[in-house]
Amino acid sequence: MKFEVITSAQNDAVKHLVKLRDRRHREREQLTILEGYRELTRAVEYGMEMVECFFSPRHFLGSNEYPLLERLAAKGIRVREVAPHLLEKVTYRDRPEGLLAVARMKRHTLEDMPVDPKGLYLVAETVEKPGNLGSMLRSADAVNATGVILCEKGTDIYNPNVIRASTGALFSVPLAETDNASAMAWLKKHNIKTLAATPHTDYKYTDVDLTCGVAMVVGAEQTGLTDFWMDGADLKVVIPMLGKIDSLNVATATTLLLYEAVRQRGFKK
Amino acid sequence: MKFEVITSAQNDAVKHLVKLRDRRHREREQLTILEGYRELTRAVEYGMEMVECFFSPRHFLGSNEYPLLERLAAKGIRVREVAPHLLEKVTYRDRPEGLLAVARMKRHTLEDMPVDPKGLYLVAETVEKPGNLGSMLRSADAVNATGVILCEKGTDIYNPNVIRASTGALFSVPLAETDNASAMAWLKKHNIKTLAATPHTDYKYTDVDLTCGVAMVVGAEQTGLTDFWMDGADLKVVIPMLGKIDSLNVATATTLLLYEAVRQRGFKK
Repeated sequence: MKFEVITSAQNDAVKHLVKLRDRRHREREQLTILEGYRELTRAVEYGMEMVECFFSPRHFLGSNEYPLLERLAAKGIRVREVAPHLLEKVTYRDRPEGLLAVARMKRHTLEDMPVDPKGLYLVAETVEKPGNLGSMLRSADAVNATGVILCEKGTDIYNPNVIRASTGALFSVPLAETDNASAMAWLKKHNIKTLAATPHTDYKYTDVDLTCGVAMVVGAEQTGLTDFWMDGADLKVVIPMLGKIDSLNVATATTLLLYEAVRQRGFKK
Repeated sequence: MKFEVITSAQNDAVKHLVKLRDRRHREREQLTILEGYRELTRAVEYGMEMVECFFSPRHFLGSNEYPLLERLAAKGIRVREVAPHLLEKVTYRDRPEGLLAVARMKRHTLEDMPVDPKGLYLVAETVEKPGNLGSMLRSADAVNATGVILCEKGTDIYNPNVIRASTGALFSVPLAETDNASAMAWLKKHNIKTLAATPHTDYKYTDVDLTCGVAMVVGAEQTGLTDFWMDGADLKVVIPMLGKIDSLNVATATTLLLYEAVRQRGFKK
């Protein structure tokens, strides 16, 4: 298959990609940028709507890129080659993989969240760093979490660094964006217990039964969970801190809690 | 106590701080920049040698900053106030805390690494992202790891983002920087088993006895562990991946392995 080639920085598509580096533009147009073989593959697999795709063969890491591009073109997505220096101009990455797509943002609401009374959920309140949110989504996928509820918007979930750090899990994990009160009401309605980590308890995270329907609730990097969730939590547990520092990174703490739940459940799919 | 105030960007100390934003300058002068109340406090506590310190009261988050500054001044460290716009010029942070120090880099060698035949070690090979390395050091401190051995240099450990992500654990955890062969020889000599995570085994990380002296060995973000460590590992375990993606972030995987060891050891200090 032959693809059109763009070589000028004055090309409208390139100018548009440069604009989309700005969050406000992405939000106004409800578009985001996906990069990388793994991310594009997962985005297609999980039904993200792609608008157009660009590639630079000189940056390819493997040999699977062309079959993917042909799959995209066969779906009617406009696919164009760009000169290497243009790819480097628009990429978010230090080491671009030569694949970049413009995709339409999805709305994620609680109405679409799967209900499972024995499920394993993650609730994240105002997580601010894209790398942390991405890593948490990656871990949520790894434990096959029923869903992730993001409350009181922190970082933009379509920030390209979230997509990257999630290695595409952003597309595979059921997601909802909502406010605290709606999330709490939804969990109560479906009899999902909430769990909060705090130093102020003697119950370790390995001491409580996590085989019931449970949502791990974690808070912002700097300030932790708000009283809204801490006071209302059904289960409060401590992650023992045996050294000098007093807390873990939010993504690593989240992963410990999620994996303890699947350990208790026998790591069953 | 009264401190000298710097208001001009032409001041030599300010120019020097700007220079130190460049890794090559930091390495040439063997100096690094520390920022934040928590980091400075831990750095002093664990014997980092500070050269000078700067502060901007308008950026302070709390009321403990002045006592800390007076402690530093009492140790003979030169402490100066800088105008808010100068602090903002030299800070690495989006939200500076108004405290910044220049400190001398330490050499970290295997000779200084504590030997404990029942110890818990972390070996990290070529970890590249400062945020990941910092987060791993934070977790190593949290489990009171005996020591962390960094092999085949990835990121600069004195990168201000490592210090920041470690929340100061960089100073509290015994560290060594070395090459693969020296690290392996040291571990063998002291009968410390090596553990590597791989998808190619049926032994889960929760299935093996981690109460013996053990080193969790983890590799670079993109490429994972090299054959050197994978082939030579005494224990190979899988972290079950129950979803669509095939691996965890290196810092979260490290934390799971370290916490499984302390879980098996009864979370004893």
